[in-house]
Amino acid sequence: MGYEQLWLDYTRKVSGRETEGIIYICVGIPDAEKDALIQNSVKELQEAFAGMVGRELTLRQEGSAGTGAAQARTGEGREIRLVRREGMRVESYHLYCEKGDIVIEASDSRGILYGAFDLIRQVKMENPLHLLDRTNAPLMPMRMLDHWDNMDGSIERGYSGESFFFVKDQIVIDERTRDYARLAASVGINAVVINNVNVKDAATWLITDRYLDQVKQLSEVFAGYGIRLFLSLNYAAPMELGELESADPLSEEVRGWWHERMKKVFGKVSDLGGFLIKADSEGRPGPFTYGRTHADGANMLAEAAAPYGGTIIWRCFVYNCMQDWRDYKTDRARSGYDNFMDLDGKFMDNVILQIKNGPMDFQVREPVHPLFGGLTKTNQMLEVQIAQEYTGQQRHLCYLIPMFKEILGFRTYVKEETDTVMDIVSGRTFGQRNCGMAAVANTGNDDNWTGHDMAAANWYGFGRLAFEPELTAEEIAREWIRVTYGNDEQVEETMMFLLMSSWPAYESYTSPLGIGWMVSPNNHYGPSVDGYEYSRWGTYHRADHQGIGVDRSHEGTGYAMLYRKPNASVYDDKEKCPDELLLFFHHIPYTWKLRSGKTVIQHIYDSHFEGVEIVDEMVEQFMALQGRLPEAAYERMARRFLEQKEHAREWRDQINAYFHRKSGILDEKGREVY
Amino acid sequence: MGYEQLWLDYTRKVSGRETEGIIYICVGIPDAEKDALIQNSVKELQEAFAGMVGRELTLRQEGSAGTGAAQARTGEGREIRLVRREGMRVESYHLYCEKGDIVIEASDSRGILYGAFDLIRQVKMENPLHLLDRTNAPLMPMRMLDHWDNMDGSIERGYSGESFFFVKDQIVIDERTRDYARLAASVGINAVVINNVNVKDAATWLITDRYLDQVKQLSEVFAGYGIRLFLSLNYAAPMELGELESADPLSEEVRGWWHERMKKVFGKVSDLGGFLIKADSEGRPGPFTYGRTHADGANMLAEAAAPYGGTIIWRCFVYNCMQDWRDYKTDRARSGYDNFMDLDGKFMDNVILQIKNGPMDFQVREPVHPLFGGLTKTNQMLEVQIAQEYTGQQRHLCYLIPMFKEILGFRTYVKEETDTVMDIVSGRTFGQRNCGMAAVANTGNDDNWTGHDMAAANWYGFGRLAFEPELTAEEIAREWIRVTYGNDEQVEETMMFLLMSSWPAYESYTSPLGIGWMVSPNNHYGPSVDGYEYSRWGTYHRADHQGIGVDRSHEGTGYAMLYRKPNASVYDDKEKCPDELLLFFHHIPYTWKLRSGKTVIQHIYDSHFEGVEIVDEMVEQFMALQGRLPEAAYERMARRFLEQKEHAREWRDQINAYFHRKSGILDEKGREVY
Repeated sequence: MGYEQLWLDYTRKVSGRETEGIIYICVGIPDAEKDALIQNSVKELQEAFAGMVGRELTLRQEGSAGTGAAQARTGEGREIRLVRREGMRVESYHLYCEKGDIVIEASDSRGILYGAFDLIRQVKMENPLHLLDRTNAPLMPMRMLDHWDNMDGSIERGYSGESFFFVKDQIVIDERTRDYARLAASVGINAVVINNVNVKDAATWLITDRYLDQVKQLSEVFAGYGIRLFLSLNYAAPMELGELESADPLSEEVRGWWHERMKKVFGKVSDLGGFLIKADSEGRPGPFTYGRTHADGANMLAEAAAPYGGTIIWRCFVYNCMQDWRDYKTDRARSGYDNFMDLDGKFMDNVILQIKNGPMDFQVREPVHPLFGGLTKTNQMLEVQIAQEYTGQQRHLCYLIPMFKEILGFRTYVKEETDTVMDIVSGRTFGQRNCGMAAVANTGNDDNWTGHDMAAANWYGFGRLAFEPELTAEEIAREWIRVTYGNDEQVEETMMFLLMSSWPAYESYTSPLGIGWMVSPNNHYGPSVDGYEYSRWGTYHRADHQGIGVDRSHEGTGYAMLYRKPNASVYDDKEKCPDELLLFFHHIPYTWKLRSGKTVIQHIYDSHFEGVEIVDEMVEQFMALQGRLPEAAYERMARRFLEQKEHAREWRDQINAYFHRKSGILDEKGREVY
Repeated sequence: MGYEQLWLDYTRKVSGRETEGIIYICVGIPDAEKDALIQNSVKELQEAFAGMVGRELTLRQEGSAGTGAAQARTGEGREIRLVRREGMRVESYHLYCEKGDIVIEASDSRGILYGAFDLIRQVKMENPLHLLDRTNAPLMPMRMLDHWDNMDGSIERGYSGESFFFVKDQIVIDERTRDYARLAASVGINAVVINNVNVKDAATWLITDRYLDQVKQLSEVFAGYGIRLFLSLNYAAPMELGELESADPLSEEVRGWWHERMKKVFGKVSDLGGFLIKADSEGRPGPFTYGRTHADGANMLAEAAAPYGGTIIWRCFVYNCMQDWRDYKTDRARSGYDNFMDLDGKFMDNVILQIKNGPMDFQVREPVHPLFGGLTKTNQMLEVQIAQEYTGQQRHLCYLIPMFKEILGFRTYVKEETDTVMDIVSGRTFGQRNCGMAAVANTGNDDNWTGHDMAAANWYGFGRLAFEPELTAEEIAREWIRVTYGNDEQVEETMMFLLMSSWPAYESYTSPLGIGWMVSPNNHYGPSVDGYEYSRWGTYHRADHQGIGVDRSHEGTGYAMLYRKPNASVYDDKEKCPDELLLFFHHIPYTWKLRSGKTVIQHIYDSHFEGVEIVDEMVEQFMALQGRLPEAAYERMARRFLEQKEHAREWRDQINAYFHRKSGILDEKGREVY
């Protein structure tokens, strides 16, 4: 086993004090031996205790006397008790201490599993167990990871090695598959899409006999950890499989094909959660080809999947990717809204629209997608990306949970109360059950799973946040540090500084004031101010000698008006628009005074110098951890931090040089701008 | 045979008038049956006559009575006579008409072959044969094609399909190999490097038993057409083959290794011409690694190859490709000169330095490389590129012979007379024999060999130019058109317009005034003004709000001073520097008046609008050829011309928008600039 166990590493010992006397694990659940989730919960607790406190927990199975493994309690010693209690919310658990015993109560087995992982976290953090009284219900029904793994083993926008799901067009199921499921489940993930939504070549065949046995096997491994397997689907599968000439969603032949296909697939893989679809986007086929709507397309699939409890997750990432940069009217930012708003209420209940956090594409700063607060009669899911495609690609540290917190906390004004994005995607706003949050995953077959060791905080943090959105980014960070690296205070404080500084620093030394897209085309790493300026992707900054920014006000593309009041009037007005989004919404002279009191150009210079200073401080503080972290991990991280330090300078100098050369305005502090 | 025969297509009939009565081919050369060149000359003439005039030429072999194929002349009918005449210059021939017979005289078999191909050209063009009296000696001793074919079958900077020399790490020898040799020999090519000089992976093994049998076989095919096979060599071969720990050119062990290796290689492949080497450049290993000079490196190989008549061709494309864009002092343009000038006179006589036409890298406009005229005691070869890496990649038409003519005609002032680049590389200036001209080849396994059908004019033209540099670009173009498409006047005049307009047009709508490099990074196709501006490649335009250009005067990098007088003082002085190179040598305000009377900025606008207008005219004229060209070829070309038309607009609009946005100055003619 060459790879790491991350926050489930049980080789790190904890002080025995809190767990003293715990020698039993008691399963008070009928028929538990047939329940893979309970069995896995027990196994996890046993392995955790064996590893961390060096104690084998003796299993007692209540109500099924005579099973070989179970033994009677002698009266001495404490126990961990797993108990079924009816009437609790789905997936929730109550973890508490009762007369020295630790009780995990839940009405379903997922709740038990989540309680077990929570207990393990408490032990890892050496929290006082006798005070335990945690009732915890996941706020979001769907907590999903979207892998962009290609079946040839590559990963689109993957920065952590190759796929561990696929090798050479085959599904791989081994020890690492189980460990992946454990890691994901331990932070509350309950749904996983294993293949790239840009379905390519082999992936079209996943719903055929060629792969269904393997899909079934994988779904069972996942099910043992409460995870439903989803597949990305090729909308044009009936054609690409060579069985039909059309994929028209209103064609009876096509509908019949899908009914048969779903029958076959779910008949074989009963645990399957459903499908993720990207249609009519970036070259993917879709209903537009036949003059149909996305509702037509999604509902056709949903109808076929409904009898089996299958869910269709339909991406709203639909835009014209053949735009003319000379065209100042067409606005990619509008496209998701314009394509889907009219369809509100027309989707079946087992359809969820998956909406990216912002209207563009995972930039370091974007406004919240206006479909949130726009749609009122449609199931919605928030899609974020922890793969860091545009935020340093797991070579730069960029802890994204603070960004996600901001997004979730955004008030849409769709109602007077419970109107935030968090309210909407947790189902509170409209009383929906099919909703939640998905992240484009950041794992690969690197030993440390995520390239940058600290990028694991995004994986961990995403799961924890989707489960308990009320946690602060700081709380999640601190928890991740302690369960991963133990309870060394210097490590904790340093890593807190690193994590919490990282997103603001990255924003500072990269693209200013919400404008985004100043990255090298295609690979999206490193600065290239004009890299996407004269392209077909709808991603422009419109910088000229006098100013920069895209006029999306009512006088421009009108995008700002897609929000509800008062958001629309705030964004529409350059005097009121928040600084950090100013250039997203307005074309602004370099000499314009920001609300901060600085001119735009001076803000650009200052933020870029400051961003690099923060990185320098980060790197210095990290280096001081030598000896306090496992050596291999320290070395890996040190290399990346040194790259970040150098690369942040490259960002700073290129951006500053670009704007200095373009505006002709000098840095008022006289620093070196090339 | 799915591919085309280009200018050796004998299926096009010619009027029989000029060839009337020619029924014999008489070989008056002793032992001709053992001479593959003579045999191939005869075969070529027979095939040409059979195809074009529908007449089988009867072979008469003088002086070897009794050979079955030979027959006596009956007295009726004319003949083509191949005759050896001692004392003529190497590779030269005399082609003339004597009492109705056509005589090809030469002192060597290559001369005979070239004369045969010349005769075929005359027949194709339907020139009056009774007036024939052409004495022709190639001016340049070495006329070489450098293929950048990788052994996996890909071609670096190849825009015409895959390699026909290599498939999956194997050398391919088939009918197309012979046809390639025929096409190359027919225009006078006498040396070919088959593998990419950026030697990768498999190519290192070309000099081992793994490939030597195939190399020998290929060299024999080539030899039958007077072509010497060369290989690109991995300088670090002793290490990469796992036999030595070092490649130090002064190490006895390394020298011994190469002596043994050359003995083995030439022992097996006696026709081998030698090797092409790129060392210490763009990541390739070289003598610098050991603190040695390029002379040390080249001479080590030359010494080992000398006993077998082998030639070492050493590229001067050596520069720092890890430059800091913030550094205004280091100048890539200087690097070839700075690295090699001090070594003048230190190379063995079987070493040739291969020097690119300009100091950068095959841009649409560069000054001539200052090593030409700098070096006086070193064998030199001019390297040009017909692959069009930076000049439209065989999607845009760009006939490069006019550019090469300019380069060859450049006066270096190294002597009072015979001081042009043509004089130097033909050996006239310094009395050298090892010199010549090489082109990075533009062929692949596309049916038409060169992607764009008209790109074949560059292949054809390069060979003809190297053979007869006194030909004008127009003469070569006209010849190519007629031998390829026949003698349709409208085709000829239209294609003349297309070819002769194409380089000026391309220059107009791409990068202005000699600045170059405004291309998309890596693929080098399409505009990206800042694409190479903040990179490590030493390729900058330094545009800011007020002006653009690189100061290479004595106040800048001093590059201009590397030329001899008066070139140095012309380039050094912005008042005297030719407009088309002004931004290469100077940083100039947009408002500066050019010698043309226009400001720099207005020149940028005007030239870009004009370039597109020329392309529009080209496309219109081409389209009128429908019905006059073979249909498949017309369709292929039409598609490319339409792409060029659209893409030229993209160039125009991006370049104009960039400079408008940066300078803030409007086009004085009020045309649309975005």
